[in-house]
Amino acid sequence: MGKIFITGIGPGSREHMSIRACEVIENSDIIVGYTTYIKILEKSFKLKDVFVSGMRKETDRCREALNLALSGKTVALVSSGDSGIYGMAGLMLQIVEENGSDIEVEVIPGITSSSASAALLGAPIMHDYASISLSDLLTEHDLINRRIEAAASADFVICIYNPKSRTRVAGLAEARDIILKHRSGSTPVGIVKDAMRDGESAVITDLDNMLNHEIDMTTTIIVGNSETFVSRGKMITPRGYGL
Amino acid sequence: MGKIFITGIGPGSREHMSIRACEVIENSDIIVGYTTYIKILEKSFKLKDVFVSGMRKETDRCREALNLALSGKTVALVSSGDSGIYGMAGLMLQIVEENGSDIEVEVIPGITSSSASAALLGAPIMHDYASISLSDLLTEHDLINRRIEAAASADFVICIYNPKSRTRVAGLAEARDIILKHRSGSTPVGIVKDAMRDGESAVITDLDNMLNHEIDMTTTIIVGNSETFVSRGKMITPRGYGL
Repeated sequence: MGKIFITGIGPGSREHMSIRACEVIENSDIIVGYTTYIKILEKSFKLKDVFVSGMRKETDRCREALNLALSGKTVALVSSGDSGIYGMAGLMLQIVEENGSDIEVEVIPGITSSSASAALLGAPIMHDYASISLSDLLTEHDLINRRIEAAASADFVICIYNPKSRTRVAGLAEARDIILKHRSGSTPVGIVKDAMRDGESAVITDLDNMLNHEIDMTTTIIVGNSETFVSRGKMITPRGYGL
Repeated sequence: MGKIFITGIGPGSREHMSIRACEVIENSDIIVGYTTYIKILEKSFKLKDVFVSGMRKETDRCREALNLALSGKTVALVSSGDSGIYGMAGLMLQIVEENGSDIEVEVIPGITSSSASAALLGAPIMHDYASISLSDLLTEHDLINRRIEAAASADFVICIYNPKSRTRVAGLAEARDIILKHRSGSTPVGIVKDAMRDGESAVITDLDNMLNHEIDMTTTIIVGNSETFVSRGKMITPRGYGL
């Protein structure tokens, strides 16, 4: 019987992948993934075989990965960042479960976008933080706003994934309005696009001005807590060492 | 002039470090870190030179790293997990700032404990989550509880770092009581100790029973949200794909 590795590939470039993830990519019979990520991997690896599909085809990819593994193949199902954070690990395990299969599955962690983005900005998430996706494809809009409210009220650093898409633009402005009820307009905000891969950009701004910057689906936004400050181009959330 | 790399080493074993972090560890003139992490690194790397110090000596380590870099050395300041999440990145940048130095500093992200722990448990953090440290050395006790309350009330998955120490035991029971106001006692809880390094253990239990398990400073606890379930030994938070 084959095996399924659910593998986070980190931000994208090989240098920020773990050694274990590289080994799995190199040694698997077939890599299953979303078009964009397979293209990124092909820049760094000679892939033996691939099964590629587009956006919103997550369920199909997982079923294909299972079928391939059941036919005896070693399969790497890849997602960007960490496969366990807004990635494919949950869905893949659910599909194995639904099938009643006892195929072996191993989850390999990766560097998620909040870590990669934070490293580019300085040290904005040194303290308690909340990670919230604004995508309302799979989550009720009200629940998203309730989470933004809770995180803002308890002074969490807030990492926002999927802030905007071509068809979904209002959510981010709403989220910002909610945060502004609890935090000053001068609260630092980091906006990072394509962290640690081609086209990377990182900007530090504040709540008042954040909507004036380019933001899309591959942007991660980090909103500081009440103590976050900016110094010489670095966004820093102190942890109370009392310097 | 030298340079400071602030480097997350991930859970500990070389295979879950990024290629970039490995290169930096191998090529730096000196590695600065907490005793335990230097010992872990020495199992996988031949370190050229080290500066080691104990717990609560974080400020000293950063000052030493700066002095070494100012004297021309390439320095790697290491923390476990991701140096940008409860690690050394913030303090190091603050000390460079305080010194008024223009020494070059680069933050290299790593795999944080919630990612490594989640991978061992299955897929518990597929959805919005809050990361909260229960250490009250650097944070007011009331603020910690306020964050637990906010995260529990808005149905975040909750990742708890530093749940307990030899002298601090009450905080975890308090946190659990707060979560139980919002979630059922049968909510799945994952308890992971020393994820992906020697002595690793991972247990899946629930809110009612979590305090019956061994928990200490190097344990990470992941409390599921209202939809998290356990199936054949895996803890899974679904993301609404509607299978």
